[in-house]
Amino acid sequence: MNQASLKPWQQKLHEIIYEADTPAGKWFDIVLLLFIVASVLFVMLESVKGLPEPWYDFFNTAEWVITLLFTLEYVLRLVAIKKPKHYIFSFYGLVDLVAIFPLYLTLVISGTGALATLRALRLLRVFRILKITRYIKEGHRLKEALRLSKPKILVFLFAVLIISMIAGTLMYLIEGDESGFTSIPRGIYWCIVTLTTVGFGDITPVTPLGQFIASIIMIMGYGIIAVPTGIVGVAYAKTAIEEPSMNTQACPNCSADGHKDSAVYCWQCGDRLHTESSESMSP
Amino acid sequence: MNQASLKPWQQKLHEIIYEADTPAGKWFDIVLLLFIVASVLFVMLESVKGLPEPWYDFFNTAEWVITLLFTLEYVLRLVAIKKPKHYIFSFYGLVDLVAIFPLYLTLVISGTGALATLRALRLLRVFRILKITRYIKEGHRLKEALRLSKPKILVFLFAVLIISMIAGTLMYLIEGDESGFTSIPRGIYWCIVTLTTVGFGDITPVTPLGQFIASIIMIMGYGIIAVPTGIVGVAYAKTAIEEPSMNTQACPNCSADGHKDSAVYCWQCGDRLHTESSESMSP
Amino acid sequence: MNQASLKPWQQKLHEIIYEADTPAGKWFDIVLLLFIVASVLFVMLESVKGLPEPWYDFFNTAEWVITLLFTLEYVLRLVAIKKPKHYIFSFYGLVDLVAIFPLYLTLVISGTGALATLRALRLLRVFRILKITRYIKEGHRLKEALRLSKPKILVFLFAVLIISMIAGTLMYLIEGDESGFTSIPRGIYWCIVTLTTVGFGDITPVTPLGQFIASIIMIMGYGIIAVPTGIVGVAYAKTAIEEPSMNTQACPNCSADGHKDSAVYCWQCGDRLHTESSESMSP
Amino acid sequence: MNQASLKPWQQKLHEIIYEADTPAGKWFDIVLLLFIVASVLFVMLESVKGLPEPWYDFFNTAEWVITLLFTLEYVLRLVAIKKPKHYIFSFYGLVDLVAIFPLYLTLVISGTGALATLRALRLLRVFRILKITRYIKEGHRLKEALRLSKPKILVFLFAVLIISMIAGTLMYLIEGDESGFTSIPRGIYWCIVTLTTVGFGDITPVTPLGQFIASIIMIMGYGIIAVPTGIVGVAYAKTAIEEPSMNTQACPNCSADGHKDSAVYCWQCGDRLHTESSESMSP
Repeated sequence: MNQASLKPWQQKLHEIIYEADTPAGKWFDIVLLLFIVASVLFVMLESVKGLPEPWYDFFNTAEWVITLLFTLEYVLRLVAIKKPKHYIFSFYGLVDLVAIFPLYLTLVISGTGALATLRALRLLRVFRILKITRYIKEGHRLKEALRLSKPKILVFLFAVLIISMIAGTLMYLIEGDESGFTSIPRGIYWCIVTLTTVGFGDITPVTPLGQFIASIIMIMGYGIIAVPTGIVGVAYAKTAIEEPSMNTQACPNCSADGHKDSAVYCWQCGDRLHTESSESMSP
Repeated sequence: MNQASLKPWQQKLHEIIYEADTPAGKWFDIVLLLFIVASVLFVMLESVKGLPEPWYDFFNTAEWVITLLFTLEYVLRLVAIKKPKHYIFSFYGLVDLVAIFPLYLTLVISGTGALATLRALRLLRVFRILKITRYIKEGHRLKEALRLSKPKILVFLFAVLIISMIAGTLMYLIEGDESGFTSIPRGIYWCIVTLTTVGFGDITPVTPLGQFIASIIMIMGYGIIAVPTGIVGVAYAKTAIEEPSMNTQACPNCSADGHKDSAVYCWQCGDRLHTESSESMSP
Repeated sequence: MNQASLKPWQQKLHEIIYEADTPAGKWFDIVLLLFIVASVLFVMLESVKGLPEPWYDFFNTAEWVITLLFTLEYVLRLVAIKKPKHYIFSFYGLVDLVAIFPLYLTLVISGTGALATLRALRLLRVFRILKITRYIKEGHRLKEALRLSKPKILVFLFAVLIISMIAGTLMYLIEGDESGFTSIPRGIYWCIVTLTTVGFGDITPVTPLGQFIASIIMIMGYGIIAVPTGIVGVAYAKTAIEEPSMNTQACPNCSADGHKDSAVYCWQCGDRLHTESSESMSP
Repeated sequence: MNQASLKPWQQKLHEIIYEADTPAGKWFDIVLLLFIVASVLFVMLESVKGLPEPWYDFFNTAEWVITLLFTLEYVLRLVAIKKPKHYIFSFYGLVDLVAIFPLYLTLVISGTGALATLRALRLLRVFRILKITRYIKEGHRLKEALRLSKPKILVFLFAVLIISMIAGTLMYLIEGDESGFTSIPRGIYWCIVTLTTVGFGDITPVTPLGQFIASIIMIMGYGIIAVPTGIVGVAYAKTAIEEPSMNTQACPNCSADGHKDSAVYCWQCGDRLHTESSESMSP
């Protein structure tokens, strides 16, 4: 029905760009992934000082080429979907836009400080790598276990925060400026560093009383790390039972994914999906 | 019966201040929470040096306003309860008093050192945030799991302490003053820092023998972190079975909370609770 | 029968010193524990430099008093048992001897270095605190869980050691002397510090390749910490089923403890235990 | 049948060198293990600077003796197997070759830098210690649990990596060069150090915003450490059910091990195994 509004070439394009059930769709995903990884690598290396000069020239050129390709992909994505607005304002749509945007802006603006910050935005492309997690069933189970444990973990983190605030203030009063506890927020920062067993060592207690309280905080942190473990462990064991089978189809209308194998209509907008049965029905 | 000693307006006030079942009670809790968070934030920021001067003036004024409001709340709490002594000497009653007390004291006493310490007491208000955990069922389960594991965790911490004392003394004898192991308590402090995998790095072994023993301590700490995890995990799995349903009512006589939904009398003092059925019976 | 070789007053003494079923036995244990804690505290504080002079005099006097009391206790223990050799060469017998020995030796030897080391031996008394764990049932379960997991944990620690040796050597080759990786053993030490997530920061990689490998080691250590947790968790769940009931009786012949409530003969030497039924049979 | 191609003395040698079911085979394994441990120890100590000169001479001589013995063992291993190529290109075959190779090379090449690196290759012998894990049943269960959890742990580590990339870039932009965040890769390195709760302290945030984000990263790392624990715990509980019984036999043809007790033919190449029943059939 309203499927008709997509021309056959658009349907084909949608299949390639948004889905991964056909060989062409899979290849598109793989090539795209390689470009993203290369792009992310270049952005990262560009920030390293002291490399030979020609490298930076290469990074610059490569970035322009990749950004042009991503711009092309962005335009194709807009063309191959019925309601482009749905894509533009989706999370990945915004990431795609923000990732190609900065390089064009550098043509207009000049000034090294703001420039560096803007160019780093290209690293947001790394989020698109997350999209391939749809290939990995395990990722689904992990996400599910974390989703189930969220309220419990939030309560736990809340408790950690309260402890940090009390203990951080106490340490600020005991230790004072000489040991680096120059303010209550710094005391709280130190307490989080200690309670999570990270222990940078940039701020450390020097008075005997401070070290005594630090010992209590450390042992407390060492003991309560067991709490999230118990929580996630139970949640993870639960997810082991129900494992839904998902496919990689995306709705041609609103580009939502996560459809069941047997789904014929999109769970979000109700539009007909691009299943084989629907293909046989399309003109 | 003895419910009669609370006048209707006191009953109403009790419902608003101590309970959260009515819309007014909920609003009171939310507003109070916001004021506490703001107050805690101001106390923390006040300790930061180097902010523009007007900020400190603002913090000062804001603290006076908030403290006056908290004083008003404290008086209302005393008025709306039958046995004010029960509230005054309860944990939250003491916290409330200690939190408003210091600012008034600064009017009498002068001297920056003691002043700073006293003002920091206002941060104790953070404990009152804990009261909102009564809204969160998960908090109850967590507390229950920790309560069940307490004897086991104490045994475990006791073992950690004995290990730290033996190993700390050993390191003090091996390493000596140059590495920072200037006394046995410091050696024990270092050992706790290491065993809990915090690892500040303010004191580190430099002799080969010291580093060898440090390696053993670290591997030991890495291995026995599994013990509390196993303990809490089992306890947490147990609490998953029985989940009691609680409400937010507080006894109008002794302000104990944690009553069952169907409770008519307080579990602590036996006084009639403020349930709907009791309301219909009150004059 | 051979019970007859202990005179009644010896039996009484044995009951008080070695057992904790009678009020007198319990009081003896508690007083002893307090003296041990005080003694350990004094030894620890004595090592702290910079305290007022009279304190050290007090520590010295207190240590002499406590050591004389412990000597008296040691002699009484020898008197109240049928086969003193069994006690002398038991673990706690040796600890008791080593703990009172050093102070007497300081009368003979002089020389501050060796003296300090010797006096620190008195801290071994801390081991005797472990004896009170017989009051705590949980300690038994923990020990049982650890005993069950021992072979698995040893395999795990062995794997950790092999990884540390390979990675430590690698880091030594990559980083070299400037970063503090001055030898392979130091590299291994660093690797254990990193793998166990302690992270002192006394030695840190500075080359990009070294930091890359360090990242892999850290993520590996973060991931495999789950292994001992899984092991102990399973073992701990197992011990939850069978919980033996123990009493605090010690054999009057060989001083072995851990007898069942219903035991009449010692499980180690077969001698008659000091149970009520055996008392009614003694002359 | 094709078993006939191994002469009786070769069969005997194969039994001693490759297997551990006979007393001679067990002794060979133990002696070899001691030599490996000694060799690894010497290589490690050789890298320590500042030892007395004669020690280095001793290490040098010992290394030559051990290397000659390992060369002999290598030749015997080639002789005692039907298809030497299978051994040469197996993992342990390559380790054995690489471990004896470098010392001979030092006769040809001179130059301290490359020399040190080459000699360190001898430490690869440590891998051969892993071979003794075939004696330990627990090692099998651990490996199985890790194998089962691999896909899930990879997904988890992938998530950790993505978080590190985003947070590392963010910290690079916020903190800048002064705090040590000189490039995005360094920011990512710092983020991994923090997220895994290692916390070296070589790079630490100094701006309030940086410390705030660092706090979030630390709490996140503290919370998600529960995920691999839950994964491995579940996998480990699964392996507790099926425990296969293995023997130490190795195929005389391709030297594969891990055969069942009742196996008559190699599971890899189908060649007849060296079981008692096959021995009675051999001439």
